[in-house]
Amino acid sequence: MWKQDLKRIQPVSSKWFGVAHERWDSLTKPKKSLGMLEEIAARVVAIREEELPESLGKEVFVFAGDHGVVSEGTSPYPQEVTGLMVRNFLQGGAGINILARCAGAGVTIVDIGMKDELPDINGLVRRNVRRGTRNMAEGPAMTLKETEAAIDTGVEMAEEAFSRGALMVATGEMGIGNTTPSAALFSALLPAAVEDVTGRGTGLDDDGLRRKAAVIARALEVNSRAMGDPLSALSAVGGLEIAGICGLCIGGAARRMMVVVDGFISTAAALVAMRLNPDIRDYLFFSHKSSEKGHGVFFKKEGIRPILDLGLRLGEGTGAVLGMQIIENSLKLYREMATFEEMGITPGA
Amino acid sequence: MWKQDLKRIQPVSSKWFGVAHERWDSLTKPKKSLGMLEEIAARVVAIREEELPESLGKEVFVFAGDHGVVSEGTSPYPQEVTGLMVRNFLQGGAGINILARCAGAGVTIVDIGMKDELPDINGLVRRNVRRGTRNMAEGPAMTLKETEAAIDTGVEMAEEAFSRGALMVATGEMGIGNTTPSAALFSALLPAAVEDVTGRGTGLDDDGLRRKAAVIARALEVNSRAMGDPLSALSAVGGLEIAGICGLCIGGAARRMMVVVDGFISTAAALVAMRLNPDIRDYLFFSHKSSEKGHGVFFKKEGIRPILDLGLRLGEGTGAVLGMQIIENSLKLYREMATFEEMGITPGA
Repeated sequence: MWKQDLKRIQPVSSKWFGVAHERWDSLTKPKKSLGMLEEIAARVVAIREEELPESLGKEVFVFAGDHGVVSEGTSPYPQEVTGLMVRNFLQGGAGINILARCAGAGVTIVDIGMKDELPDINGLVRRNVRRGTRNMAEGPAMTLKETEAAIDTGVEMAEEAFSRGALMVATGEMGIGNTTPSAALFSALLPAAVEDVTGRGTGLDDDGLRRKAAVIARALEVNSRAMGDPLSALSAVGGLEIAGICGLCIGGAARRMMVVVDGFISTAAALVAMRLNPDIRDYLFFSHKSSEKGHGVFFKKEGIRPILDLGLRLGEGTGAVLGMQIIENSLKLYREMATFEEMGITPGA
Repeated sequence: MWKQDLKRIQPVSSKWFGVAHERWDSLTKPKKSLGMLEEIAARVVAIREEELPESLGKEVFVFAGDHGVVSEGTSPYPQEVTGLMVRNFLQGGAGINILARCAGAGVTIVDIGMKDELPDINGLVRRNVRRGTRNMAEGPAMTLKETEAAIDTGVEMAEEAFSRGALMVATGEMGIGNTTPSAALFSALLPAAVEDVTGRGTGLDDDGLRRKAAVIARALEVNSRAMGDPLSALSAVGGLEIAGICGLCIGGAARRMMVVVDGFISTAAALVAMRLNPDIRDYLFFSHKSSEKGHGVFFKKEGIRPILDLGLRLGEGTGAVLGMQIIENSLKLYREMATFEEMGITPGA
């Protein structure tokens, strides 16, 4: 399923950027004076291939998964917190719930790889591929088959959102310990030195940070033969929620949807997708620069400017739904501002 | 009027920051993981002196004024555009109208110093102090009396918004040529070298930029005796809309309102207010870093981090109402997120 979608992805056409910038230049403001907002709306026009795209249905997908590597002591939180936070999401009390309401975005929580089953809970989308990954410091975190199943789940979520009329999806995740596989993926796929992309996650001290970097280095070494292609790297040192987000990026781009990428972990997933098909980049909106060390390394290496820089490091998709609001604002400006002609003003510089 | 308000302004108390951060740390997220959003909401708590501030009524004030200094060729746009854009504001077709709708903010347009009278127009708040400033390159742009009248108008707008129930006001302006007096004020009050704070405004070429810097240098020299205090500097090399915004900052802070500051010109006005009473800073939220050269110099010198950095240079208050949305989002998170206690989770790191 995901492989067909990957092949369907087309680069966006510069012709439509031209159409969009011509309209921007006809609006009552100095040329280019809305900066990044003009670039954002122009890209939406190019993705949608229509001069005046309608307001966009918005959904955020939070993929939850657990990580065998936490047995190495890479996170200060116990693994049970993944399940507790998923309960919180489904009760509407987490950060992502509040911000999604602000953005007018629907929230879907997907168990793609949680350790806890939470049988008593309603509203959880149950697509568990396995109950947490294996310890990547001792071998591959997942089999290729598991990885592909998780990617397919992400594609399926994009398809479901699309069929409900959404044109903009945001990525989100919950998984205790998931900055560790993310850092490993950045190291392997950017590539970058382990210490440059390994950060404190939810709050490691100096000793913990050193231990985490050593675990990542060991995982990359143990799995060194898998690092040759993005899919096997994802299997070896990734995670199920990361594979799910990778699938959401692929499925979204294949349907010409806007995919709004959250922070460090989501970006690691987006990077896998970009390495699988570079054209996918045209559909990705990187919402913010997280305070997690390594996220800045990605932006610098890839020459991408994130929309926001608020020092967030919560995950869940919180930065992505904030970014959705900026995208929505830019589209409203683009669609609704008066033109110079309507105002009887001759455009200036 | 403004002088009484200036004296009423109190620094905010660290006690209330403590109250806010204690609540933030009780919410279901790793400590400090919402970065700048936590700081923003904490400052609202400290300003309002209540643990759970309600959602805030929001208004943006766009002060329009003209500038005698444009006769020196400092702007590529003709002065008539000020009036044409004011018509656009009142018809709802400008950038600020669209973004204010997104933010749920009311828009008030104030003629504080326009050259054109626009007698046929409805909805304009008519507080014209004079029909454009004098050419600051030949002497003071305004008398002290005119300056104080314009500041009082800003205070009056804060009072009116407050009496309507608004607790958050955004600053905006329209005035062809107004990056020139703004740069002069930055140079005088930061202080900074003229060339470090003089930018291309709405689109000057290299020759125009050199001419503009020379004009600013001349204005500062001609008015050198006025540079000793912020009020006379504002009179000599400022503008009527800049004085109005300065008044809005003073009146807002005196009423413990949140004042959301827009870009380069609004920041020059806010700087005057900060130099008149440093405590005012506690009430100012700098919404974004404009692409106008010199804005970054202000943030660096004053040690302030703006909320957004989107390369905007439109003015009108557009960046400020975008910033309002971020502030509103941070407050919603602060008020509505579940606590660890409610979720039965023991807080971690």
